[in-house]
Amino acid sequence: MKNKNYYAILMAGGVGSRFWPISTQDFPKQFHDMLGTGDTLIQKTFYRLAKLIPTENIFILTNERYNDLVLEQLPEVKQRQVVLEPAMRNTAPCILYASLKIQKENEDAVMIVAPSDHWIEDEDAFTSNVKEAFEFCSKNDALMTLGIQPTFPNTGYGYIEYNKKEDKTIKPVIQFREKPDYELAKSFLSQGNFLWNAGIFMWSVKSVLAAFKNNQPELFQHFMNGYETYNTVEESEFIQENYPKAENISVDYALMEKSENIYVIPATFDWNDLGTWGSLYDKLDKDESNNAIVNAKVLATDASGNMIRSNKNKVVVVDGITDYIIVDKDEVLLIFPKTKEQDIKKVLQQVKDKFGEGLG
Amino acid sequence: MKNKNYYAILMAGGVGSRFWPISTQDFPKQFHDMLGTGDTLIQKTFYRLAKLIPTENIFILTNERYNDLVLEQLPEVKQRQVVLEPAMRNTAPCILYASLKIQKENEDAVMIVAPSDHWIEDEDAFTSNVKEAFEFCSKNDALMTLGIQPTFPNTGYGYIEYNKKEDKTIKPVIQFREKPDYELAKSFLSQGNFLWNAGIFMWSVKSVLAAFKNNQPELFQHFMNGYETYNTVEESEFIQENYPKAENISVDYALMEKSENIYVIPATFDWNDLGTWGSLYDKLDKDESNNAIVNAKVLATDASGNMIRSNKNKVVVVDGITDYIIVDKDEVLLIFPKTKEQDIKKVLQQVKDKFGEGLG
Repeated sequence: MKNKNYYAILMAGGVGSRFWPISTQDFPKQFHDMLGTGDTLIQKTFYRLAKLIPTENIFILTNERYNDLVLEQLPEVKQRQVVLEPAMRNTAPCILYASLKIQKENEDAVMIVAPSDHWIEDEDAFTSNVKEAFEFCSKNDALMTLGIQPTFPNTGYGYIEYNKKEDKTIKPVIQFREKPDYELAKSFLSQGNFLWNAGIFMWSVKSVLAAFKNNQPELFQHFMNGYETYNTVEESEFIQENYPKAENISVDYALMEKSENIYVIPATFDWNDLGTWGSLYDKLDKDESNNAIVNAKVLATDASGNMIRSNKNKVVVVDGITDYIIVDKDEVLLIFPKTKEQDIKKVLQQVKDKFGEGLG
Repeated sequence: MKNKNYYAILMAGGVGSRFWPISTQDFPKQFHDMLGTGDTLIQKTFYRLAKLIPTENIFILTNERYNDLVLEQLPEVKQRQVVLEPAMRNTAPCILYASLKIQKENEDAVMIVAPSDHWIEDEDAFTSNVKEAFEFCSKNDALMTLGIQPTFPNTGYGYIEYNKKEDKTIKPVIQFREKPDYELAKSFLSQGNFLWNAGIFMWSVKSVLAAFKNNQPELFQHFMNGYETYNTVEESEFIQENYPKAENISVDYALMEKSENIYVIPATFDWNDLGTWGSLYDKLDKDESNNAIVNAKVLATDASGNMIRSNKNKVVVVDGITDYIIVDKDEVLLIFPKTKEQDIKKVLQQVKDKFGEGLG
């Protein structure tokens, strides 16, 4: 029996433009089968959460334009569970809004907020970490994060510093640290009590709403103004009018960096945010020449270290190409060095400038 | 007014497998718009000949399986003009067969036999060369070829040695020379009276049939046995049964190397047999980075000397790739060094071995 107080908010409004040309405004990354497993990233995330959380308690927070994609890819999900943002306003407004809707439905709710497009290898370890956190949040006024054990001094993530004197699994957080430079990241790793901030949060609806009320009273009031309408036919009208007026602010900044009752549970699973083609390459199985292949049938000669993706069963012949991203879809072919993967956003902009907006 | 005695046989039965993946068994090179002009190679060849020759006198010699492609791409052509080979038997049998059909229709016919997949820049020069040859063949018992002025010691073509004492445009041929090695090819060029054999022949139907009768009496008799049926409803039955029994022999070997009345007219136009992706690259216009592009919209960074072809208007982003053949179609993507273009047949065989026959 799954606990009826367990809830989830899946964040599915982003675009993931470093995964262009597969990820586009019309069809972002989380709705693609990036790993070639047969499931899209949002499907994998949904079913991972559904091991612990009743499916009817999993809410999908996304942009209006992805409503149909969500309902199509997650047939168990009812329209009631799809919370639509009429505008992009960062994470705090949408989490506050969804939390108020959940509170109105179940004031004893304990919830996880999680991105819909991350890779997690060991699903049982994930479930066990979340369960432990949920039990803690049920009994304590706590805002919790799931911290990832750093494997190298990555300068692309924020870090969470925890109190190393605490020997329980769940540790009080000393402070959140913004993306460091390389030297600082190295010192974080050598200190041993720093974790990557993966943007995975857990708390009771009581605690998170109390934190919003204390730390962001204006934003809190802004969404409380519509409380009567939530989960009714009037909700949509209120949200359409008022959501765009909300402050653009992240939940990290709005709550986590301002509260005292912050805890972290170090993940016991292997994690990857699948931020770039290179990070996807790292996580995929390789062929004998160390090429990572999704969907394609590849004939490779003197070609290794490539990330190759095409439409299902397309034959891709590569000769003499090393460490490239080769991504082919109906209207775009990208042949690009893996070392320059951070430039893909720029490339997309150049393509739009040269050939029109439709392609991103 | 075009001369009603002028005829053409367009050879359109080959496959051009070095142009894989565009050229395939089901859809060979001559039926593709290889140059990105909007016309397929057979269309360009047909309309080039039609400047001099009445369209109803242009016959297309091809394999049964390409009948529909011919009628679709050349709407002026009637079924009567499509001469189908039930089996591959090299050039002599099909030219003999087509010549007998033409003789039965017009015994004063003068004809050109030409490949359907070559590139000729100056169409007026071509027309003028052919016209001069036709006039000569009308008045003389001559088997003529159109010889191409060599631009480098190519070891991939046969050569035609002509009598350098002849100062008229049309020159008696001394001998045909098979593909030479590099040293011999260089000596041919330095001697100055050697031309490339482009497989373009001109003669009167009287002369070519006399030559077949003299030099290949068995083959001649084999096809004369069906003479009564040609251009009637019985023709197909005779050909189906007897064509496959004909000897497999080229017209070069069957007639040209054995006859005395051979002449050559040196072409005054620029020619290319479009044998490989590299030769196509040479003939196409280039962008500012020296990339030759067909159909694609290309964003190239640090990428030059490439032959890039895709479906119409596909965006192709290439970065850091030099002197490659990049050819993309729905079910195959080829990324292959131009220097290895002669290996494409082998690659096709590997693809068939690994992924099945359907792709070539």
